[in-house]
Amino acid sequence: MKELISKAKVLIEALPYIKAFYGKTVVVKYGGAAMTDPRLKEEVMQDVVLMKYVGMNPVLVHGGGPEISRVMEKMGKKVEFVGGRRVTDQEGMEITEMVLVGKINQEIVAAINRHGGQAVGLSGKDGGLLLSRKISGSQMDLGFVGEIKRVSPQVIDALERDKFIPVIAPVGVDENGQTYNNNADDVAAAVAVALKADKLVLMTDVPGILRDPGDVNTLLSTLRVQETESLIQQGVIQGGMLPKVKACERALLGGVKKTHIINGKISHALLLEIFTDRGIGTEMLKEEE
Amino acid sequence: MKELISKAKVLIEALPYIKAFYGKTVVVKYGGAAMTDPRLKEEVMQDVVLMKYVGMNPVLVHGGGPEISRVMEKMGKKVEFVGGRRVTDQEGMEITEMVLVGKINQEIVAAINRHGGQAVGLSGKDGGLLLSRKISGSQMDLGFVGEIKRVSPQVIDALERDKFIPVIAPVGVDENGQTYNNNADDVAAAVAVALKADKLVLMTDVPGILRDPGDVNTLLSTLRVQETESLIQQGVIQGGMLPKVKACERALLGGVKKTHIINGKISHALLLEIFTDRGIGTEMLKEEE
Amino acid sequence: MKELISKAKVLIEALPYIKAFYGKTVVVKYGGAAMTDPRLKEEVMQDVVLMKYVGMNPVLVHGGGPEISRVMEKMGKKVEFVGGRRVTDQEGMEITEMVLVGKINQEIVAAINRHGGQAVGLSGKDGGLLLSRKISGSQMDLGFVGEIKRVSPQVIDALERDKFIPVIAPVGVDENGQTYNNNADDVAAAVAVALKADKLVLMTDVPGILRDPGDVNTLLSTLRVQETESLIQQGVIQGGMLPKVKACERALLGGVKKTHIINGKISHALLLEIFTDRGIGTEMLKEEE
Amino acid sequence: MKELISKAKVLIEALPYIKAFYGKTVVVKYGGAAMTDPRLKEEVMQDVVLMKYVGMNPVLVHGGGPEISRVMEKMGKKVEFVGGRRVTDQEGMEITEMVLVGKINQEIVAAINRHGGQAVGLSGKDGGLLLSRKISGSQMDLGFVGEIKRVSPQVIDALERDKFIPVIAPVGVDENGQTYNNNADDVAAAVAVALKADKLVLMTDVPGILRDPGDVNTLLSTLRVQETESLIQQGVIQGGMLPKVKACERALLGGVKKTHIINGKISHALLLEIFTDRGIGTEMLKEEE
Amino acid sequence: MKELISKAKVLIEALPYIKAFYGKTVVVKYGGAAMTDPRLKEEVMQDVVLMKYVGMNPVLVHGGGPEISRVMEKMGKKVEFVGGRRVTDQEGMEITEMVLVGKINQEIVAAINRHGGQAVGLSGKDGGLLLSRKISGSQMDLGFVGEIKRVSPQVIDALERDKFIPVIAPVGVDENGQTYNNNADDVAAAVAVALKADKLVLMTDVPGILRDPGDVNTLLSTLRVQETESLIQQGVIQGGMLPKVKACERALLGGVKKTHIINGKISHALLLEIFTDRGIGTEMLKEEE
Amino acid sequence: MKELISKAKVLIEALPYIKAFYGKTVVVKYGGAAMTDPRLKEEVMQDVVLMKYVGMNPVLVHGGGPEISRVMEKMGKKVEFVGGRRVTDQEGMEITEMVLVGKINQEIVAAINRHGGQAVGLSGKDGGLLLSRKISGSQMDLGFVGEIKRVSPQVIDALERDKFIPVIAPVGVDENGQTYNNNADDVAAAVAVALKADKLVLMTDVPGILRDPGDVNTLLSTLRVQETESLIQQGVIQGGMLPKVKACERALLGGVKKTHIINGKISHALLLEIFTDRGIGTEMLKEEE
Repeated sequence: MKELISKAKVLIEALPYIKAFYGKTVVVKYGGAAMTDPRLKEEVMQDVVLMKYVGMNPVLVHGGGPEISRVMEKMGKKVEFVGGRRVTDQEGMEITEMVLVGKINQEIVAAINRHGGQAVGLSGKDGGLLLSRKISGSQMDLGFVGEIKRVSPQVIDALERDKFIPVIAPVGVDENGQTYNNNADDVAAAVAVALKADKLVLMTDVPGILRDPGDVNTLLSTLRVQETESLIQQGVIQGGMLPKVKACERALLGGVKKTHIINGKISHALLLEIFTDRGIGTEMLKEEE
Repeated sequence: MKELISKAKVLIEALPYIKAFYGKTVVVKYGGAAMTDPRLKEEVMQDVVLMKYVGMNPVLVHGGGPEISRVMEKMGKKVEFVGGRRVTDQEGMEITEMVLVGKINQEIVAAINRHGGQAVGLSGKDGGLLLSRKISGSQMDLGFVGEIKRVSPQVIDALERDKFIPVIAPVGVDENGQTYNNNADDVAAAVAVALKADKLVLMTDVPGILRDPGDVNTLLSTLRVQETESLIQQGVIQGGMLPKVKACERALLGGVKKTHIINGKISHALLLEIFTDRGIGTEMLKEEE
Repeated sequence: MKELISKAKVLIEALPYIKAFYGKTVVVKYGGAAMTDPRLKEEVMQDVVLMKYVGMNPVLVHGGGPEISRVMEKMGKKVEFVGGRRVTDQEGMEITEMVLVGKINQEIVAAINRHGGQAVGLSGKDGGLLLSRKISGSQMDLGFVGEIKRVSPQVIDALERDKFIPVIAPVGVDENGQTYNNNADDVAAAVAVALKADKLVLMTDVPGILRDPGDVNTLLSTLRVQETESLIQQGVIQGGMLPKVKACERALLGGVKKTHIINGKISHALLLEIFTDRGIGTEMLKEEE
Repeated sequence: MKELISKAKVLIEALPYIKAFYGKTVVVKYGGAAMTDPRLKEEVMQDVVLMKYVGMNPVLVHGGGPEISRVMEKMGKKVEFVGGRRVTDQEGMEITEMVLVGKINQEIVAAINRHGGQAVGLSGKDGGLLLSRKISGSQMDLGFVGEIKRVSPQVIDALERDKFIPVIAPVGVDENGQTYNNNADDVAAAVAVALKADKLVLMTDVPGILRDPGDVNTLLSTLRVQETESLIQQGVIQGGMLPKVKACERALLGGVKKTHIINGKISHALLLEIFTDRGIGTEMLKEEE
Repeated sequence: MKELISKAKVLIEALPYIKAFYGKTVVVKYGGAAMTDPRLKEEVMQDVVLMKYVGMNPVLVHGGGPEISRVMEKMGKKVEFVGGRRVTDQEGMEITEMVLVGKINQEIVAAINRHGGQAVGLSGKDGGLLLSRKISGSQMDLGFVGEIKRVSPQVIDALERDKFIPVIAPVGVDENGQTYNNNADDVAAAVAVALKADKLVLMTDVPGILRDPGDVNTLLSTLRVQETESLIQQGVIQGGMLPKVKACERALLGGVKKTHIINGKISHALLLEIFTDRGIGTEMLKEEE
Repeated sequence: MKELISKAKVLIEALPYIKAFYGKTVVVKYGGAAMTDPRLKEEVMQDVVLMKYVGMNPVLVHGGGPEISRVMEKMGKKVEFVGGRRVTDQEGMEITEMVLVGKINQEIVAAINRHGGQAVGLSGKDGGLLLSRKISGSQMDLGFVGEIKRVSPQVIDALERDKFIPVIAPVGVDENGQTYNNNADDVAAAVAVALKADKLVLMTDVPGILRDPGDVNTLLSTLRVQETESLIQQGVIQGGMLPKVKACERALLGGVKKTHIINGKISHALLLEIFTDRGIGTEMLKEEE
């Protein structure tokens, strides 16, 4: 009985957070270790379902991961990356779409449903959700690597009103019907803006932004948009973290209240982010807040 | 961090129960020690607010307790009980109503609101909620002690749709406008039937129905409506427990799914009842379920 | 038959007024003789129910009257007034709340229901309706005498949509949960502003504002907000009338269309105010109207 | 002031009737003297507008009256009646429709609007309201005299929800598009059934059904459907009253709660019917009520 | 089968137009040959019903035509025109209304219904649709010839939401209840503005605005509002075309997107106007579009 | 102009069919040549979009076709069929799902969107749409070949209310989360029953049921459910047609009004089926209709 009571107290401790996030929309970029480690995977699904049941509106955007390369290789297709981005010709795009929409997305949908949620998988083609265009400003032609031109969130609105959890594959289409592979962080940021989300959470495999990359004790818990430029100059924000910070910046300037870069390797990282005061990882916000 | 993760796990363990009770109406008779002990009081309020936030529709019915006698004595009014029921003349009825509606009910409302809920106090007069009549079958005239003739739950419907938590004082009125004091267990049972509630929970100061009243290890966890008669014959159900069992019986026959007699002296008893498999106290249900 | 026809004609005469007030919200401060005289009391209840049925949305705010002092004395509590306001310590506040919410409010609710309306009693605690704070600017500490800081009218909205008549006791609560006794005229004005009411009617025991207090023929039928200052200077508005005029002023500046100070001693004063061209008592409005 | 108060009392006396008829649908066959006498006409319009404002849903069905013959004669068309029914050839039908829909109906609409209502004129063609067929069982061919085959009340439903008062001309159309002139009493009865009306009121120029036609003191105030057959046998119900009683019978059997045959020559006859206990004229109902 | 397939292709060709006009409101002034030639009449009705079924909201306003004069003459009333407008005394107004509302309007309603639509006839009196006043600026007193002062489109809103097609007779009424005959083009323009229509279509008996009236090859397909003044100066727009162009101008300035003057003598002119790229007749729009 | 008018006439000819199918749900099994021939493909998409715009609710269920085998072979996976059904082990199931959901489904969605529709792709996992189980009664173990146990159409309901066109891949999942490949005809029939569809259309590569398979003139246009058994006995219904007829039978017994087996090789076969009197192919219905 004692143990039961102490469990009840934990629930009660969560109450202020539940109240604070009631009715709020949270867009989660799901990727990294949390997507490959079976135990972490289950925990994310549980977290998302719990979020839905206590009144939040979670929306998942997932990336691709090693699965795309694996299938490509199996189909005798050369795998090539330039600057962290996959070079994608027409055939590669078809394989990428098949894996993202027909495999990874569906696995997430099935996992959420197994935990009692009601997920619906969406690609950027469904309901014209993601209008893409060829990425600009790249020095090399990466093929069908796109960036988001416009989000049409009506299909998400229809689903959320009916209690479904949208799970989005980062595949978009341009005005001519050409399919593009988009960066999942970028898609998550654009979707968060279009949904006027309260939070954007990017799951990564690192603890957040570290002043000294070798020392987790130098984690920057909170960051103002205004400080990023100088941190980039100093080399604190660099490499794979750079586009993530840029995505957060775009989200904040587009009206999202807060963004979070968290370590998906931590058990129930999503829940901890929402149900603890300090959160985990690096939180970004605008000056005036 | 470890402690945080273990807390997150407790939340996740609650998920199946949250799912199971999502959208369900739970009528709680609030009384006994849980209403006089300040710590227990706070815990009940927390439990109720949590229930609301995770999607249940809790409705509270409270009793009077020692406060009525205290005010009566202060106002120079004799306090008299017959068979556990307060003898209530016109002046006594007025004091009773004043204390129930203007003091106890408002304290509960304020406490729920302090914990972030949105409570609204109701007496049986509000919106014609409780139509009473003089109690029948009593050997002695107890004065204005009533029983419920009809519940008109429209005012509760209006409030629940708008996210309020109804808190009901067991004061009723007959067709001629005469006020009656009603037993709170009976009111809770009648309201549960009128609302087609999924659960009726009676908070008491005992662990439930004990086969041997001196031994808590003889607790009857589950009881079928059909077994009560024989248990009354055997003297297992007797005294103050008898009318409570009768109230549960009426609720079950009226369509309520399950009833529970629980020990309000246990910390977070309400939460434990709902968020654990076995529940606590004695659960009653109909044969076929 | 002739008599019947002449009655029908009276109904027809009311038609333009019914049309003019269809769908309008009218907040009524109910107090004074109309609350103590049994015949006047019945008439007010009839008027209110009629208003509801012909399409208006009446909202009642009541004061306390002699009942509070009577109960206080009975409970051996000293009754003390300073500048027309009751000195209220913690125990006095509890008694005041008990009488206002548990007795006076419930009597009004029961009376309206007896006449076929569907009243619901509310205190400022219900649904967080009235946020109070200690009255400022008073030279003496009156204890828990409050003023209104904010009105949260959601609970009234919920009830009006469902055809109920809200009856409000002027009890408020501050951010720390401390209960305050508020002036009913002030509460009525604040509620009228929060509901964007079309009319605020203050029932008093005098005919309105008289230029010569001894001569009812000097009644000021209409008053512009701009004229009040000069009338106060001249001593025409003074004593108990002063806070009432101030309440009207606040209501008008807050967007209420018209306010009325009427004589509750007149039979069906409320109805006359609404169903006659000139109205009765003193009407106040803003310059531009 | 005294006079005002006594007027207020008359309004209050109306309250029980307003409550009793709140939200009820009342279909009125408007005809006879009430349609030709200018003063009576105005009074009916006032009555109808008042009914709407106090929460009823009045629906008017009007007849033709002398106007049709007047226009026919002016257009050099022979006027002919057989058994109280106008013989109607194609040209006569066109004139009849023009007068009913383009003149009488519009005059009523304009008069209601002048009194503050929002009337909308409808013929049986509008929204396919009245499907007619050639009257059967007539010994002589009367031409395009029809009876009602089906009422499609969707257009009335659309208008009532938006606070309009429907005014119906008794013109119908058959499956082939042929226009028919229908008896207004029959149309009123059929519309009352289709709308599941609470009341059907037929305005006539006589006091109701008289046992002795020469003596108004022999008025039958209440009649059961079961008694009509015997009263027809006895010759008490005969002549022009016979089809009216038959229309009432059909309405009652079709589910209308009560029907009334009243004297439209009385000032505010409609209002008296509704706002007095005994009503006026002859009321008909079914046995079990 | 081949013929069937080629028909299917025609349907498919219509798809872009159906999409473009989905949910759009189109006000049509129906008059001229299209109203007198039986075959053209049927075709207009078919066109209107089709427009409704493929998702548009057509609203018809019809004129009077030769029928009014015919009935007037039959009733021994002198027919007189001044400057193309009918001189209308009180008796003439009554006949005009009777014919417009009771004959022409009802024929159109019946015809639409025969083709499977759900039409409802409205005059300017119904629901207070058209508030008129005596036409100003006329050198001669034409009697009750009016111009539109205000449109109250609530009755149309009520009907459109319920899938009905409104058919409007150009009869209006002033504040004193006096009936006026209004020009149907003017009514159509005013209704289009009040409904924020996307299109106003005026059906005439000419191909549109011709630079050389004798040569259909000089048709002006598109016209900017800004060009009309100069075309009037040049005498290109003159005679009966002048008031039509003025009506279009008012509609465009009032917010209607496009106006069209088309030749109602062409089979399915309405459909062609909507389901072809170039449209037919003369299209008018504002500069900026 | 003449050509235009004759096109308008074709549109008008479609009107009765548009009316007849307004608001009706039509489930289409899309497969065969219509899915591989690029021109036919485009035509089907146009037909579906047109159906949506003229008020129908089309729902597409597609099969897999040669694409699955192609990808399997490319990935070095053996392709094996038994009795027309693909033998599907775990790895084969993953490839099948990837191709069905991530390739074929998305191509259809993109094509519909390109023609102006708003399609949303769904697998049986999305929103728990298709609950499957291992196919029973098969003599050989085919692996993860499933049959439909339950359809949960809430996700379709949510989408249709918002004007989206659902496109369903026949992938289901059992209670343990195991994925199954289902026959698309069976899925279409089950979905049609769950949606209470008015029509089920199965697109094939043959003209329908032929009494003599070699002679298209022996096409059975209409078939009663009751006749199928005898036609199976006679060998008229056999081979690949047998399961299709069985699917139709289940749909009809489940409440679908009509089913159609049509030749998808005909241009605009869907449109012809709906917009012609006789339809094309073989129509099946129940006796009583």
